[in-house]
Amino acid sequence: MDKNKEKSIGIVKTEYFNFDKLLLECGKELKNVTLAYETYGALNEKKSNAVLIMHAFSGDANAAGYHEGAAKPGWWDNMIGPGKAFDTDKYFVICSNVIGGCSGSTGPSSINAQTGKPYALDFPVITIADMVAAQKELVSHLGIKKLLSVAGGSMGGMQVLQWAVDYPEMIASAIPIATTMKHSPQQIAFNEVARQSIMGDIAWNSGNYYNAVQPERGLSVARMIGHITYMSDKSMEEKFSRNLKEKAYSFSFTSDFEVEGYLRYRGDSFVKRFDANSYLYITKAMDYFDVSGKNFVKEAKNKDAKFLVISFKSDWLYPSYQSEEITKQLKLRGYNATYIEIKSTYGHDAFLLEVEDETRMIKHFLERVQKEAANG
Amino acid sequence: MDKNKEKSIGIVKTEYFNFDKLLLECGKELKNVTLAYETYGALNEKKSNAVLIMHAFSGDANAAGYHEGAAKPGWWDNMIGPGKAFDTDKYFVICSNVIGGCSGSTGPSSINAQTGKPYALDFPVITIADMVAAQKELVSHLGIKKLLSVAGGSMGGMQVLQWAVDYPEMIASAIPIATTMKHSPQQIAFNEVARQSIMGDIAWNSGNYYNAVQPERGLSVARMIGHITYMSDKSMEEKFSRNLKEKAYSFSFTSDFEVEGYLRYRGDSFVKRFDANSYLYITKAMDYFDVSGKNFVKEAKNKDAKFLVISFKSDWLYPSYQSEEITKQLKLRGYNATYIEIKSTYGHDAFLLEVEDETRMIKHFLERVQKEAANG
Repeated sequence: MDKNKEKSIGIVKTEYFNFDKLLLECGKELKNVTLAYETYGALNEKKSNAVLIMHAFSGDANAAGYHEGAAKPGWWDNMIGPGKAFDTDKYFVICSNVIGGCSGSTGPSSINAQTGKPYALDFPVITIADMVAAQKELVSHLGIKKLLSVAGGSMGGMQVLQWAVDYPEMIASAIPIATTMKHSPQQIAFNEVARQSIMGDIAWNSGNYYNAVQPERGLSVARMIGHITYMSDKSMEEKFSRNLKEKAYSFSFTSDFEVEGYLRYRGDSFVKRFDANSYLYITKAMDYFDVSGKNFVKEAKNKDAKFLVISFKSDWLYPSYQSEEITKQLKLRGYNATYIEIKSTYGHDAFLLEVEDETRMIKHFLERVQKEAANG
Repeated sequence: MDKNKEKSIGIVKTEYFNFDKLLLECGKELKNVTLAYETYGALNEKKSNAVLIMHAFSGDANAAGYHEGAAKPGWWDNMIGPGKAFDTDKYFVICSNVIGGCSGSTGPSSINAQTGKPYALDFPVITIADMVAAQKELVSHLGIKKLLSVAGGSMGGMQVLQWAVDYPEMIASAIPIATTMKHSPQQIAFNEVARQSIMGDIAWNSGNYYNAVQPERGLSVARMIGHITYMSDKSMEEKFSRNLKEKAYSFSFTSDFEVEGYLRYRGDSFVKRFDANSYLYITKAMDYFDVSGKNFVKEAKNKDAKFLVISFKSDWLYPSYQSEEITKQLKLRGYNATYIEIKSTYGHDAFLLEVEDETRMIKHFLERVQKEAANG
């Protein structure tokens, strides 16, 4: 067993929670909803030590630990486990795949019971609030009345804010990371280009590709654009510079530079694990996300709720000024909110990579929250 | 005649210069080369007042004035004309379409005399140095031994630097704007994604689409990506914010937001005027561009050569630090180099929009250069 595995929560398994229906923001009802989820650690007797983790755009329920036979652990394994930031010796950690996704929860690639075929574009357009409403069903099903914390980066952070807006009485604290209170036109623009790339691929076929191959070229290009926005100018320079794959320019349209090879590899591997229609639905949910102004967290009855807002200096996709605005609006409404900008050259990816700083901050924050919840 | 037309150089016409062959950096020879070009103002007797303007990625020879019947003037009409930054009452201004392009100069959509068909991918991969070598033929053909100045923004700025590297004895001054001395991995990455979008469109057909329709969807997505990089987060916020096209979210995949409509419109109109293969060739030329280190401008015999380096604060595609590096390297080699960062929220597009500041700086700079050239 290697050192990483030793520190990990170990072998984990995805579970499935089914419920009858969910009324969506668009007015439609989603029936026979399944949420894929995982839990790590033990729920205490008072059911007061639960932390809900929410994943980013392409994440899934496997936040930590190894699936049987898997070479790689969950997407935030470096943050969740015994002695880690989200310490499974102390906390009961839950993570579920968002609805609209393609990793076990109900989404456009799921079978529509009414037709016996995959939903495709008959799947209703969902929002961040709908994702969170589904999570609330899961949390209640697990018998938890109040979460010690909700935490997540990027789109996970949007869900964190949505929890604070919609169910403030159900959270003792919240940790939005590398996120925004509303998708900006630039953020919408990158998503729209990705969607156009997918929908422009002839294989997309208006979303009806489930009996054939999915729009791999369009989806791959969409993912390549994503990866550029997840890194920074500087981290690309540090990782690739102008390094060539071969000794000299090819004077052709094969990939000359390492950065080109990296992007193509990332695009190619993504299409093997992600559904193109889910890409459309989840990016649309992000674009619709706007809890600014009158939609923001209300002046709380529950003024004890604590917020830890984290951003990263080189993140230009969800720049620090957006986290500063979240913090300001929380403080204006009387919340106990701490904001930290972590120095990093990793860009948006930093929320997955700057483990040491994040661990220290989150660990201390959760300990304080737990102590005060016990005293309260 | 409206006010804009009044200030303009007026009706202009594209001319064509043909020459036998050009030895390219890749080792191949391009035969029967045509350069589309325009000139404005009059060449003086000493032939000492010529300024060569070089266009950016998707530009053409029509830098100023109106083509017969055209509603819009050339791409830098606000900078070139009587009394303007490049004052046609004083200077003889030349602009030519780059080789590899699709606006009159020889490129992949031109007829290959050997086959009687468009070159398509049989067109050799060209470089910024090749573009400049072709321009040098044109300048010599016009009987000019030394240019008063070479100027251009973005890819135009790369050509400016290449002139200084390859033909230092032929320029009295140079004005590189919003550019870099080498394409960074992030800049390469954006170009590579655009190329993959084009080549992933089934209509591309390995470049052989000239007897059918070109890969419009792939080319449109490429252009949309481009437009995001040409603007800034802030200019998008100022122009579009989260404004909707209709009163409410559509809960569908039509374009809800104004920014989406803008990008789609830009993509759709681009495919009507630009050749997809030219997109591939010209972006590759930019990606190969690297005049850093030992490739940079040599310690000049001609130490009188003056440089005016301009960048824009919100330009994140060709950020200011890259212009600062150009200036530093010029000064290290003993050149008279002035650097100015113009405050702007327009992003990379600023070089086409910040006319007032650019005009003042360039006007004074050219006057000094001309005076010293006359005294020298």
